Amino acid sequence: MVDVDRLDRNLRRWQEECDRLGLANRPHIKTHKSVEIARRQLELGALGLTCQKLGEAETMIDAGLDDVLIAFNLVGDRKLERLAGLMRRATVRVTFDDPALLPGLAGAARAAGEELGVLVDCDTGLGRTGVTEPARAATLAAEASRTGGLRFDGFLTYPVFAESRSFLEEAVELADVDVPTVSVGGTPTMWHAEELRPLVTEYRAGVYAFGDLNTIAAGVGSLDEVALTVRATVVSRPAPDRAVLDAGTKALAADRGRDGGFGHVVEVPSSAIVKLDEEHAYLRLGGDDSLRLGQTVSVVPNHACPAVNLHDDLVAVQAGEVVDRWRVDARGKIT
Amino acid sequence: MVDVDRLDRNLRRWQEECDRLGLANRPHIKTHKSVEIARRQLELGALGLTCQKLGEAETMIDAGLDDVLIAFNLVGDRKLERLAGLMRRATVRVTFDDPALLPGLAGAARAAGEELGVLVDCDTGLGRTGVTEPARAATLAAEASRTGGLRFDGFLTYPVFAESRSFLEEAVELADVDVPTVSVGGTPTMWHAEELRPLVTEYRAGVYAFGDLNTIAAGVGSLDEVALTVRATVVSRPAPDRAVLDAGTKALAADRGRDGGFGHVVEVPSSAIVKLDEEHAYLRLGGDDSLRLGQTVSVVPNHACPAVNLHDDLVAVQAGEVVDRWRVDARGKIT
Repeated sequence: MVDVDRLDRNLRRWQEECDRLGLANRPHIKTHKSVEIARRQLELGALGLTCQKLGEAETMIDAGLDDVLIAFNLVGDRKLERLAGLMRRATVRVTFDDPALLPGLAGAARAAGEELGVLVDCDTGLGRTGVTEPARAATLAAEASRTGGLRFDGFLTYPVFAESRSFLEEAVELADVDVPTVSVGGTPTMWHAEELRPLVTEYRAGVYAFGDLNTIAAGVGSLDEVALTVRATVVSRPAPDRAVLDAGTKALAADRGRDGGFGHVVEVPSSAIVKLDEEHAYLRLGGDDSLRLGQTVSVVPNHACPAVNLHDDLVAVQAGEVVDRWRVDARGKIT
Repeated sequence: MVDVDRLDRNLRRWQEECDRLGLANRPHIKTHKSVEIARRQLELGALGLTCQKLGEAETMIDAGLDDVLIAFNLVGDRKLERLAGLMRRATVRVTFDDPALLPGLAGAARAAGEELGVLVDCDTGLGRTGVTEPARAATLAAEASRTGGLRFDGFLTYPVFAESRSFLEEAVELADVDVPTVSVGGTPTMWHAEELRPLVTEYRAGVYAFGDLNTIAAGVGSLDEVALTVRATVVSRPAPDRAVLDAGTKALAADRGRDGGFGHVVEVPSSAIVKLDEEHAYLRLGGDDSLRLGQTVSVVPNHACPAVNLHDDLVAVQAGEVVDRWRVDARGKIT
């Protein structure tokens, strides 16, 4: 269930902050995976979208949303053909962290007959993909610039650590080429973006659209700003202190929260979801045993993104009424 | 990817064991969620199917597979209407663990104009749903028998603990009514089913169709019997000892294995998947750094069921060739 008023407020507040800071807003669609919500973000002033997979980008571009950054290394003939297909009909940029990726990307640009903008993926502390040294980032910037068909568009990192700023500053300083974009991401740090200006030019946030228990634990937002809940039914009351809901990892996702629990039940704030199976949530009631068998409740998930990816539709609610049903268009796009 | 020969061998071996023991085989479709595989199970001799949710049962019955046990408490008008709809066109049974559920189930039976078979859900150690005392199970059996429109069909438990046998024996002994079915489930204990005969009459196994790392860790099957793998690509080689795959919790599911890892990479058995993000697997290579950027690998997931639920299709492979594509028909059926 999506609370439309809260969603719109969350989107508008962040766009206004980006406008105030002169920061390009490029929201990450990984959270909502929904054309309807991406469109709202763009209508409010977002510059374009961020996608994590080609399949997500294809979904958005099929819907006519035509400026997409794919923040992922693309490798392999099939994926590069798909990239070329997208470049023929939209503005697409990609990231890379290895010079071995450049010939493939250049080939896609050639096949599309378009210049491809590329950003160097910088690992400023996460230890996932990305180059781990500013000097290496600058070298890759130069290599991209020298590669026919490619245009070096800047540096990108995720998330923002204390060290990220100095890494990016050094990379920009060492780069022999112009650095049009410095792009960072992450909902937990978004309200500190001002401190990164003017170095950082673009911000990619995803979860801010809905909020979840993780972002609240990170100090961003509060329960009454959360726009996404999972509706569940009490299907068993095996003991006075225990209730079982018909929503497990298939509805809420398996992410454990910082408090050790698996979601917040709005109607019984003193309760705790202590365990999930695929189809069940185990609720410890903590004194409040008011829950009846058959009662429906709203659960705020720990992590909105994987929860949404389990559902085909979002039920849009306004003032307590169901007003629409939005497809999770890019659900399950794993390549 | 599904290895069709391994799948068929897994299905056949278990059906032959059930035939040998005179045990009704009622495989749980939660693992494959696929009409094609359910049909193979029935053609080999399975008595019917087990589903966990109404939506799964609807999917199977829509495909003409017409004997389904729904091993879940059903409560609420919407669900009971759907149950009545299924009863009009198939043989459907359900479980329950609370007398408060009986009026609703009886109402569904009345609406359908059919008798509804019900089994008492027994908690013999899991601590999820189900009655926790054999005497209580016997009481519910009597209550179901007295309820118009309902037919008491037996006792059900999951999984099989050391205590399960004596619980079920006592429940059967205490029951004042005939107990046609005693149904147990779980792949880890299936090859010990002989020890439960003749008390137990029906077995529900799901994962046995594919196998996964969890069942291997439980001592059931070996890697060369596993029929399900997730195909992934090496998308980054940020360090000699580290590779990153484009398959994360959205492709493999988030279940952690008993070894602490998140899947087994067939091509690099000495490696370990030490962490997953939504779109990435972090692979520690452990000495073998042969993996190339762009190489594709096969990953055996920890838990087949939630992994399959993330995918729209299963790619059927035989002798190294793709031979078919099967829908995960009941993917995402959360109610």
